[in-house]
Amino acid sequence: MKKKHLRAVFIGFGNVAQRLAAMLTVERNSFPGLKDLQLETVGIFTRQRGALIDPAGIDLGRALEQFREDGSFPAAPVTVLQALQTLDYDVLVELSTLSIADKGEPAISHVRTALERGRHAVTANKGPAAFAYRELAELARKNKAQFLFESAVMDGTPIFSLGRSLQGLSVTGFSGIFNTTTNFVLSRLEAGESMEAAVRTAQRLGFAEADPSLDLEGWDAAAKTAILANVFLGADIDPLQVERRGIGDLAAEAASRVMAAGRRLKLICRAELENGKVRAQVGPEEVPMDHYFAAVSGKGAALRLETDMMGPLWIIQEEPGLSDTAAGVLQDLITVAADR
Amino acid sequence: MKKKHLRAVFIGFGNVAQRLAAMLTVERNSFPGLKDLQLETVGIFTRQRGALIDPAGIDLGRALEQFREDGSFPAAPVTVLQALQTLDYDVLVELSTLSIADKGEPAISHVRTALERGRHAVTANKGPAAFAYRELAELARKNKAQFLFESAVMDGTPIFSLGRSLQGLSVTGFSGIFNTTTNFVLSRLEAGESMEAAVRTAQRLGFAEADPSLDLEGWDAAAKTAILANVFLGADIDPLQVERRGIGDLAAEAASRVMAAGRRLKLICRAELENGKVRAQVGPEEVPMDHYFAAVSGKGAALRLETDMMGPLWIIQEEPGLSDTAAGVLQDLITVAADR
Repeated sequence: MKKKHLRAVFIGFGNVAQRLAAMLTVERNSFPGLKDLQLETVGIFTRQRGALIDPAGIDLGRALEQFREDGSFPAAPVTVLQALQTLDYDVLVELSTLSIADKGEPAISHVRTALERGRHAVTANKGPAAFAYRELAELARKNKAQFLFESAVMDGTPIFSLGRSLQGLSVTGFSGIFNTTTNFVLSRLEAGESMEAAVRTAQRLGFAEADPSLDLEGWDAAAKTAILANVFLGADIDPLQVERRGIGDLAAEAASRVMAAGRRLKLICRAELENGKVRAQVGPEEVPMDHYFAAVSGKGAALRLETDMMGPLWIIQEEPGLSDTAAGVLQDLITVAADR
Repeated sequence: MKKKHLRAVFIGFGNVAQRLAAMLTVERNSFPGLKDLQLETVGIFTRQRGALIDPAGIDLGRALEQFREDGSFPAAPVTVLQALQTLDYDVLVELSTLSIADKGEPAISHVRTALERGRHAVTANKGPAAFAYRELAELARKNKAQFLFESAVMDGTPIFSLGRSLQGLSVTGFSGIFNTTTNFVLSRLEAGESMEAAVRTAQRLGFAEADPSLDLEGWDAAAKTAILANVFLGADIDPLQVERRGIGDLAAEAASRVMAAGRRLKLICRAELENGKVRAQVGPEEVPMDHYFAAVSGKGAALRLETDMMGPLWIIQEEPGLSDTAAGVLQDLITVAADR
């Protein structure tokens, strides 16, 4: 296999991007699969902490050190969109975070701008595929570029890659557990803890954001459900079209009653084809103790795919960390590189 | 996508081949993913029930009917190896059954003969990849042909296809439950049934062969472990090199004691890299009730993959049937067709 040289622009330099940068530099020799991926970074943009631009190539390891020391890059001389329109790059690596309120923006505009120029777009942000999958996938096809987002659901667990390799099988529906925060909070409720205490514990352990409402109200799960419905079932929906019940108003008492009855309470995502139309939903469900869903604990996640030819297939992620998310971005980058 | 025309020779016309033939003919319209697969059958060979040969193309649907009515095809005018050396075909579809005593033969010779002529080989037989993976994979590479065996482990669950698409990830070890008969028998033992009664029940329900020793002694599991070790860990081992303990001499009482202690008894396959060497083993293990392995029941199967970049990934097959095995062969055929 020949070396694959890719010029990349990064948007976002938070936890995932920093993990990725470390895996590509100081940790690189630990990962034999990266030996053929030659990535040259020509720009790194953050929302509020400046930017680095160098058409001759940024030393990613040094940039990481500098950012960790200074807490920011120098002020950006151009806007992100200007950079995406003018810089010479092969792939956009979009690592900003989902905004439901802004319906996936500005990540959608970033991805669109890259694809319109025939540049590949790789993103861990759920926004583009949750709110604009059909448009962006068609744009990518038209411009012979790739639009990849392996890390948007179940981190680097290669579910979209698996989907691309399901030769001859048609997916007819799916269900799954995709949100860590609610999965963790539900297990604490089952154990008798109050909602407030469970959420505080989740925040202390790094499972939940300072504002946990996106998770507790089921928005994160709805975004992931929309993506999977769009990709696997050919739907054209966004998270607002997913029937959604969160767990915010669940009483601890109800959860421990479920547990006492030998069942578990889980936030289950579902979608299926009904008379050619896709119905997608998210909500708490009781599952029997010997069901795979019951065994999904902590940060785990699970996807159950139904197909036309076979019995249900499961893909389960046991105990993901930040590296799992970065690994999904790396898989996408290698897919892009292999395609050139 | 343009139509993919493939000329095929079948070896074996048992349950899987008949299921496959039905899916390709009378049931074809139920599977939209097959619309681009154009398969022309030029030969069907069985071990003891004759053969059909027609360079102009066999009507597969009519052959299936005829075989079901007559119980056999006409006597074969040539040997299988002669046919594989002389017929004009693109792909061998090898669906005979594993022989441990004959170390994977005659299936290995069939596959080798096809690959030596630069023809693709697709097989559901565990023998070739369990006893001769390295040789056959190299032969395929050298002759620009494909050697595929998706159905050899976990039926059509696309684990080898997933393996091919694990961009950049290196597998460092795996464990799994791959044998249906032992999984079923163990669950009956746990419920208090005797080994004899459990095996009889398995035979009555179609889980176990008339001679169940290949399963009970762990040979089927060892063959699958060898294949996975060869493919995912770069090993060059055969089933005889897998450390193997079966369940044949397990007392029912021991199994129900495990159950009473809140654990399950499962035949677990494992392999890992130890100092650059692969260690592979099969044997009964106790697993905690909240472990995914404990939830694998009936005909289910599970594979847990460890990789260098990510937490463990699981691929689980919930309730496979004969169509799942046929679906694996179809996936391989579509992979071959796409590659031409």
